[in-house]
Amino acid sequence: MAHPQVQITHCEEFSSAHRLHSPHLSDQENRHVYGPCNTTHGHNYRLEVTVRGPVDPKTGMVMNLNDLMDVMRSEIWQHVDHKFLNEDVPFMKGVIPTAENLAIVIWQRIAACRERFGSARLYRVRIVESRDNFVDYFGESA
Amino acid sequence: MAHPQVQITHCEEFSSAHRLHSPHLSDQENRHVYGPCNTTHGHNYRLEVTVRGPVDPKTGMVMNLNDLMDVMRSEIWQHVDHKFLNEDVPFMKGVIPTAENLAIVIWQRIAACRERFGSARLYRVRIVESRDNFVDYFGESA
Amino acid sequence: MAHPQVQITHCEEFSSAHRLHSPHLSDQENRHVYGPCNTTHGHNYRLEVTVRGPVDPKTGMVMNLNDLMDVMRSEIWQHVDHKFLNEDVPFMKGVIPTAENLAIVIWQRIAACRERFGSARLYRVRIVESRDNFVDYFGESA
Amino acid sequence: MAHPQVQITHCEEFSSAHRLHSPHLSDQENRHVYGPCNTTHGHNYRLEVTVRGPVDPKTGMVMNLNDLMDVMRSEIWQHVDHKFLNEDVPFMKGVIPTAENLAIVIWQRIAACRERFGSARLYRVRIVESRDNFVDYFGESA
Amino acid sequence: MAHPQVQITHCEEFSSAHRLHSPHLSDQENRHVYGPCNTTHGHNYRLEVTVRGPVDPKTGMVMNLNDLMDVMRSEIWQHVDHKFLNEDVPFMKGVIPTAENLAIVIWQRIAACRERFGSARLYRVRIVESRDNFVDYFGESA
Amino acid sequence: MAHPQVQITHCEEFSSAHRLHSPHLSDQENRHVYGPCNTTHGHNYRLEVTVRGPVDPKTGMVMNLNDLMDVMRSEIWQHVDHKFLNEDVPFMKGVIPTAENLAIVIWQRIAACRERFGSARLYRVRIVESRDNFVDYFGESA
Repeated sequence: MAHPQVQITHCEEFSSAHRLHSPHLSDQENRHVYGPCNTTHGHNYRLEVTVRGPVDPKTGMVMNLNDLMDVMRSEIWQHVDHKFLNEDVPFMKGVIPTAENLAIVIWQRIAACRERFGSARLYRVRIVESRDNFVDYFGESA
Repeated sequence: MAHPQVQITHCEEFSSAHRLHSPHLSDQENRHVYGPCNTTHGHNYRLEVTVRGPVDPKTGMVMNLNDLMDVMRSEIWQHVDHKFLNEDVPFMKGVIPTAENLAIVIWQRIAACRERFGSARLYRVRIVESRDNFVDYFGESA
Repeated sequence: MAHPQVQITHCEEFSSAHRLHSPHLSDQENRHVYGPCNTTHGHNYRLEVTVRGPVDPKTGMVMNLNDLMDVMRSEIWQHVDHKFLNEDVPFMKGVIPTAENLAIVIWQRIAACRERFGSARLYRVRIVESRDNFVDYFGESA
Repeated sequence: MAHPQVQITHCEEFSSAHRLHSPHLSDQENRHVYGPCNTTHGHNYRLEVTVRGPVDPKTGMVMNLNDLMDVMRSEIWQHVDHKFLNEDVPFMKGVIPTAENLAIVIWQRIAACRERFGSARLYRVRIVESRDNFVDYFGESA
Repeated sequence: MAHPQVQITHCEEFSSAHRLHSPHLSDQENRHVYGPCNTTHGHNYRLEVTVRGPVDPKTGMVMNLNDLMDVMRSEIWQHVDHKFLNEDVPFMKGVIPTAENLAIVIWQRIAACRERFGSARLYRVRIVESRDNFVDYFGESA
Repeated sequence: MAHPQVQITHCEEFSSAHRLHSPHLSDQENRHVYGPCNTTHGHNYRLEVTVRGPVDPKTGMVMNLNDLMDVMRSEIWQHVDHKFLNEDVPFMKGVIPTAENLAIVIWQRIAACRERFGSARLYRVRIVESRDNFVDYFGESA
């Protein structure tokens, strides 16, 4: 029998500092490419994680939201909230902390917990950096 | 001649109570699975319905937003707003009122009005349950 | 020396069910006065608590936000979140759970913790019941 | 080597007036089809433009957000903000200014700047017309 | 016995066009003073009306929110929603439709319905014109 | 003749990093008092500035919103946006960058521009630090 496929999304917010600076560019190029983002500043980030899967007829749920929340808090939130992303976060070491890279790294860390998702799978990671800028990563490469 | 395909979305809010409790589980299992949601509580739900179709060159519209709004209000809003989903809503009888199930049932009720959508078709139902949790249903099974 | 007076506000959200029904009114009057609110329904409530006082020059703070948050969570949030206000909340027993009464009762419970506020004092309690309705209580009577 | 594909979105708001009236319809039909929208009114529009492409390992970016912002401001914002869409906007001449048509015309103008997007491509244009209504265009025809 | 004084606020949104142009100024001065607002444009306005009074112990309410909503809809909303404020709204005739003047005129129209407020009184009118601009009027003159 | 007194508010957002650390406290006390805020992190701050005064009957305005915006951008925004408040902002030197202190310093800088406000006066500075925390300063001492 066919089971409806539903996407569920949970969101967490964290307040972090970052500075965009690439080791592949000169200081002058960094200032040119990143503009004001080349200076240490910060954001209230909003992380949205979407999981997709069949609805369990016994519970009416794709997966337990508390489990999704636990994964997001233990794998991401407690490492990045009230932190300087360039210096304090082991899994961001050597990564330029753009919203794009943040989404990719977060995808990898959450996808590594897939055994907690039952028959659901990670579908999307969204990082909202400010009220007018956000990025989405669906785990795709090209 | 090719017609551009556009998605239009209308949103309605409703304030309802619900309690998550599965007849397939013991009381103890229900408390374990649903945690605090096993107690009667409530939400300001936000329902977003997306319809997709070609833009009518005569009107510049995919379908009349008033028709979409009418369907959403008569089929859903007037039955669930200021109601206890577990007890007061005929089409939720026997359904565990998770956001996932709510989205699926709403999809079915709105899809049943497809003759009002002209050449458009129902594309997505989103239920935002609280500021950090929402679900999406695209009418898909697996 | 004069110390600047600043107001700080912390917010918490809770998802509760309620039903408006007055013991001073007949069933028919209740239906007439409260309309759809006479049926069990629910909200994502937003509680905003504002405290006002001098800024401590040693810390730059009116009071520690964590203390304010602790008071709000232990005195209010843990008692009302995912609860049916009419039945599950001891301090709402015998109180018609309108937003007005909820604000007054919350004021009383938080004001009773004033020893945790140092030289600051409780200034305002706001309850946002839905996106278009909210109430404010400043502890005033007339 | 595979490069992760990420979507980045930038948003701009503009405050414009419009009136929905089709030259293909009689005055009476216009009133019937568009209802209150047949009268001159206005909105705070929110324009969201999404671009999709590989993340440049040198910069950690899909494209420079400032370039995307520049395109949106010079091609769209400065022409529509604080304007009457029916009369003041050259690229809307002869176009019924529904949200659907606005999204299509904006898509065309932004897609015409694709040389500024590097290896990224325009993915979606969203127009949020009011808090309960929005449209999405992905550049597709049928 | 003292009755707690509470403020209740209800909000309504309306989508209107306006143009700022003063009969007391030359065309050139108008362009200088109002800048882009001298051109016909529009907004999704948010109107917030606050009423203040004692809580009726029999109902737990300052006044019936439905009555407040009725006054706001019949006196304001139905006259301004989907209208051109400069031309279509009798009570705005001869009034420069700035947010300030809109708030004052709305105050007057709502205050004129005070018999519907019981022992409560009109306390504040807020007009939110865009996400970054709003005005408040408390009925005060100087 | 009496002139209506209206309050107008303009908002700007800035993305900054900060670290709470008091020179009056030991390192251990700093960690205890500020908790996670003792680590460099950041926010999307929202600054709301409210000005109060009579409405000029010739323009229908309290003051020109563009002038208020200019003052906010030149005095505040360009100095704090995409900056590390502890190190990059001259007027924050020696100030513990709590939201309270930020509001007070911003008040002082904006009040110093009062000649640009005509017959209006600065009424309130609000700093929204995250979605659940904000402070208000009305220029008062005690």
